[in-house]
Amino acid sequence: MTIASIYEPIQPGLRMVEESLKEFSKADLPWMTEPLKHALETGGKRIRPALTLLAGKFHQYDLEQLIPMSTAIELFHNATLVHDDAVDKSSLRRGKPTVSGLWGEGVALLLGDYLFSSSSDLVCSTGNLRVVRLFAQTLMKMSAGQLRELLSAYNWRQNRQDYYERIDSKTASLFSTATEAGAILSKAPEEAVEALKNYGHNLGMAFQIVDDILDIIGDEAELGKPVGSDLLQGTLTLPAILLMENHPGDNPLREVFEKSGDRAEVERVIEMIRNSPIVEECYRIAAAFSAQACRALEGLPENPCRRSLLDLADFLIARRK
Amino acid sequence: MTIASIYEPIQPGLRMVEESLKEFSKADLPWMTEPLKHALETGGKRIRPALTLLAGKFHQYDLEQLIPMSTAIELFHNATLVHDDAVDKSSLRRGKPTVSGLWGEGVALLLGDYLFSSSSDLVCSTGNLRVVRLFAQTLMKMSAGQLRELLSAYNWRQNRQDYYERIDSKTASLFSTATEAGAILSKAPEEAVEALKNYGHNLGMAFQIVDDILDIIGDEAELGKPVGSDLLQGTLTLPAILLMENHPGDNPLREVFEKSGDRAEVERVIEMIRNSPIVEECYRIAAAFSAQACRALEGLPENPCRRSLLDLADFLIARRK
Repeated sequence: MTIASIYEPIQPGLRMVEESLKEFSKADLPWMTEPLKHALETGGKRIRPALTLLAGKFHQYDLEQLIPMSTAIELFHNATLVHDDAVDKSSLRRGKPTVSGLWGEGVALLLGDYLFSSSSDLVCSTGNLRVVRLFAQTLMKMSAGQLRELLSAYNWRQNRQDYYERIDSKTASLFSTATEAGAILSKAPEEAVEALKNYGHNLGMAFQIVDDILDIIGDEAELGKPVGSDLLQGTLTLPAILLMENHPGDNPLREVFEKSGDRAEVERVIEMIRNSPIVEECYRIAAAFSAQACRALEGLPENPCRRSLLDLADFLIARRK
Repeated sequence: MTIASIYEPIQPGLRMVEESLKEFSKADLPWMTEPLKHALETGGKRIRPALTLLAGKFHQYDLEQLIPMSTAIELFHNATLVHDDAVDKSSLRRGKPTVSGLWGEGVALLLGDYLFSSSSDLVCSTGNLRVVRLFAQTLMKMSAGQLRELLSAYNWRQNRQDYYERIDSKTASLFSTATEAGAILSKAPEEAVEALKNYGHNLGMAFQIVDDILDIIGDEAELGKPVGSDLLQGTLTLPAILLMENHPGDNPLREVFEKSGDRAEVERVIEMIRNSPIVEECYRIAAAFSAQACRALEGLPENPCRRSLLDLADFLIARRK
């Protein structure tokens, strides 16, 4: 299974999204061209626009609405990456220098604002106020969630529930908006909208858990960023939370966070996790979300897009970067 | 003439906006309350929501639409302030510590995102897609303009035209959106929408020029920030541009900017401006924009709101902070 075979039913649509992203970065504003191009050529898998197109193919597949929507979803996603890297002061993403690393945090902040507002403008062009509002509410949820994460950095008093809420805000919310918007714009009946939204939410939860596992067991070259980044930045993820659960009397995270993510301490904790059954347990939890995503699709007609959504759920669990 | 007497015809509306801002900062998200309250209690004059209400009172004055719109305009404005202070790394605004000064730039960035998206959500509640889109396009224009300003910091190769374009993006665009949105939501005929938009644009131009004059001749205690901040940060404003025009052979700004806004050099330039007729000339230019704003209203019915808009144009020119 490759991502290309999964995207097969929506290939022409995805190409149009790619075209429209390219058009967009050629903005009339010469001083924007370079940072815009840099922000949009991420080498990412374009999962979110693909979700919108796939979710939009169960009813009226209207590309005139779905292309601006999918393009907007990708602009929005890239805006969040540009802002997150500025907040985290990260200099690398997927092995490439970040906008804030190259041009400074001020440029990253303003470029992100430009991308957010452009994505909102593009969604307005669908003429559908419901998806416009959904979009605004997604950014509310994401920024509030990221703010909570930032303010609770290096705080080890967090449990699974806190973690699930955080990854819902930061990742699952945009996945579910991507599928929900596709469904709404294809004039799907409400149960189908709900089902596809539900799929997106659970897929996003699984996706983020796998991301957090890879931050512990991944390979620096493949990840394009240092292993253990989350712990170094004081972000508690599922593997670390399970480790704390397994050591109720003697919290191994406490020392790491009290030393503000000291590298040697972080490496010690990573070793503890790797030498325990925690990674397997995290994969089981991710697989459970992924299975719930697939179950959400049960009431939808069987067609190539449903097959692709099911395959995508497997693919994202098995990925290595 | 006081600001209270100018706001007289819209007092009840403005009080409702104040209430709704207070409600907003009591968000259900406990970790947001303090920074939100801090960002919204600016002690500002609430000019932009007042403009929306005044512009909305020539036709159908529908507070159910105008209150969320005016509240959104103020949230949006405060979002831009929070982001600008983070970009400029300013620690003071109107004598009060900034969000980025108190909580850091990451918090300022995310809080600004939350304010922008909340304002967009609130505009969506009017159900009017035209104003929603106008809103998104205003942020596009503002962030692109601010990015241009940031990238041209300490560049003395800028003329009046560049300056007018910059202040149009950074200030006049939101003034004109405030009046245009008020007009649209009150179902004004298109010529009236155009007239009120035009008023807002010219008022915003005049307002920013006066701001830039005060940065040169103002009093630190009244301004709540150091005199000469613009030059220290490498931003060319009208007084400095006129000074360059008056010294074509021997540019007095060159040395300042080549030394990245060295304080002694900045003070020397401020003295040169103060001892010349430049300030008077800048006031003449601001007054011309203000007069153009007033002329734009000529076709509108004579009523207390028109009087207030005319008075506001005088008031903003005469202000000292």
